[in-house]
Formats: sequence, C-alpha cells, structure tokens
Amino acid sequence: MNPHDPPRPRPRPGGRTARIREQVLDAVRAELTEHGYDALTVDTVAARAGVHRTTVYRRWRDTGGLIADLFDAAADIDWHPRDTGSLRGDLAALNAEIQESFTEQPSIAAALVAVSFRSDEAARALQQLWEDRYTQSEIVVERALRRGELPPHTDHRALLIAATAPVYHHVVLLRAPTDPALPDRAAHAATLAGRAGAFAPSR
Amino acid sequence: MNPHDPPRPRPRPGGRTARIREQVLDAVRAELTEHGYDALTVDTVAARAGVHRTTVYRRWRDTGGLIADLFDAAADIDWHPRDTGSLRGDLAALNAEIQESFTEQPSIAAALVAVSFRSDEAARALQQLWEDRYTQSEIVVERALRRGELPPHTDHRALLIAATAPVYHHVVLLRAPTDPALPDRAAHAATLAGRAGAFAPSR
Repeated sequence: MNPHDPPRPRPRPGGRTARIREQVLDAVRAELTEHGYDALTVDTVAARAGVHRTTVYRRWRDTGGLIADLFDAAADIDWHPRDTGSLRGDLAALNAEIQESFTEQPSIAAALVAVSFRSDEAARALQQLWEDRYTQSEIVVERALRRGELPPHTDHRALLIAATAPVYHHVVLLRAPTDPALPDRAAHAATLAGRAGAFAPSR
Repeated sequence: MNPHDPPRPRPRPGGRTARIREQVLDAVRAELTEHGYDALTVDTVAARAGVHRTTVYRRWRDTGGLIADLFDAAADIDWHPRDTGSLRGDLAALNAEIQESFTEQPSIAAALVAVSFRSDEAARALQQLWEDRYTQSEIVVERALRRGELPPHTDHRALLIAATAPVYHHVVLLRAPTDPALPDRAAHAATLAGRAGAFAPSR
C-alpha cells in the first residue's frame, strides 16, 4: 500500500463495513484455493462476494490490496497455543495445528505460502505472520522453563523452530503424504534436545 | 513428457549433444534466477544459449521440457555427503551445503523451489530430487550407527529430516536473514535427540 493512501475505514464488528469485508475476504480465499493466484481478479472476487465491483476497487484497489488484507485478517485472529501441562504435549499440539492447517481441503495456509512465491508483498506479509505466531508461541517455552523442564537461558525461538520445522518441511516442501505420528515425534525430539541443552548457550 | 515421445538423444559426455545441452541448461538457469518462471520462453533460452531455436523446440519441446531436464541434470550430479568422522560434524556439513545453496546469488535451488509452486511437473521432480538426496544422505546415519553414536533401530530418514528441516524452514519459508550458527545448532540438536532415542521406536 502506498503510505499516502487514505486509511481504510475502520470496521465496527458486526457493522456493514465488517460484513462486506468478511464476504470479500471469503471470496478471495475461495478463489485462491480453487483457481490460484494467477486467476485472481477484483471482478471475480466482487462477483463471488455479491458486492458491487466499485466498492471493492474503492476499498482494496487491486489484488495486491486484497491479498494484504487477507494476511491482516489472519494476523488479527486472537490465537494462543494450547496449554497441555508439558512441553512435549504443547509442542505436539502446536505441530498438529500446523499439519492440519496445511492438509485440510481447501487449505488457506497452503494458498498463502504459494502466493508468497509470486508476490514480494505477500512474502513480507507471510514473514510477519510467522514472526507473530512464533512470538505468541514463546509462552510454551516460558511455561516449560517455569516447570523446570528446560535449562535456564534456553533460546525460545530456536527451540520452537526446531520443533515445528519438520512439520513445515514435510507438508510444504517435501509434499510428503501426511504422517500422523510426525507432530508428536518432532515435539519429542525437540523436547529431548532442549532438555539436553541444545538450545542453551554453553557458558 | 508424452510417453510416446521418441527418447531424447543420449548425450556422449563431451560430445556436441552434451555441449548444446549444457549451454541450454545454463541459459535456463540464468533466465530463471534473473527473470523467474513467468518470463521463461524457449525463444529467450535459445537466444541466450546461442543455439538455434528449432534445435531447442525439437529436443525440449516447451518450457516444461526444459524445466524437467534441469531437474534431471541436478539428479545426475554424483553427490555424496561429507565424512567428517562424527554425526554432528556430518550433519553440520550437510546443513552448511543446504544453507549455501539457498543463499548464494544467484540461487538455482531457490529458483527450483519457486518453480515447484507454479508447475505440478516441477513439484514432482523436486520431490524426487529431495527423495534422492535424503537416500544418499542415509550413509551419514549408517556411519553413526557403526560408531555406536546412535541407538540401534534409529529411523535414518526421521533423523535426517529433523536435522535439516530448520535450515530449509529458515531460508525457504521464514526467509530469515542467514544465521551462520544454524547449520551446526540444528545438527547438534538432532544429534542429542537421536542419542536420547527420539528416532528409535520404543519397544
């Protein structure tokens, strides 16, 4: 977005503006997962959403604006990792959520990753979304530290990335068949490595 | 490729056919890393390679054929993981190679991953290439087992994926700045987890 653009109208939850935004973003998600980024146009989104095309052009301008708002909407979700009472359990629950989000049909997560290889703006938005999710997940390591499950000075982010990366690698890059044991196995491996001090600097 | 296509001429190493293939694939790599998949055409590849366009059309047919041959060429490389004398060292060397291949400029590896999100044929070819590389890397786990560094029945592939996934996640998906400590840190974590039995089924 151009920094000189007028600010978007702030949606009141439940108001007409919010309702239209929801209809339009639902249409973007459906078009992306069914036809991909190449086929995405403001006109097809407007038609699918049942919203006048001039409304969509005025508010979102172009497909770049629609995609940016899709990421904003994902970032706005009030997401928190589950609290299962153990580090391995928390990491396994996190991994199961990640695996599910990429293997469900249709997968918005998979569509957003694919778009990130087409548009630099989308790549930056996805980077920010992941940054937010990892920051929100640091509480998992906090809790484990408080329970004494990990050595002090454990690097929160390094442990979280070690725990989740195998799931992303499987579903996004290797495109391997879903392995139902993987979320817990990756959680278990990261927990054992973490306990053994792999993510705490030796001093 | 159509299964009824005549087989491609088998290149004699150093022969004219092999030389033309090398010139053409070099041009494909240069076009992909400079202008991306969208801009790739047989004509620009032929012009860049200094090869007559009818030669390229006859032998590769279209950009799909060029991309497929690029993956074939990558698969033909006689690649072996380094033998450093320890599991952690071998995995760190493997990770350093992966990180380097994605961060060097221009990066063919990054271009191939980007293409895999545009073409199903390329996605399958990349899947096969990774399958081959992981199979070739299993010797690293074999050697560690022989040295007694890992419990028997350790799952070779699960350990290799745990060791390498954080590097792929960083450079391909998170698009994070290069972290020179990551190859060894991920190797160390997978080694500790492996020693603790994370990749050996409990029986």
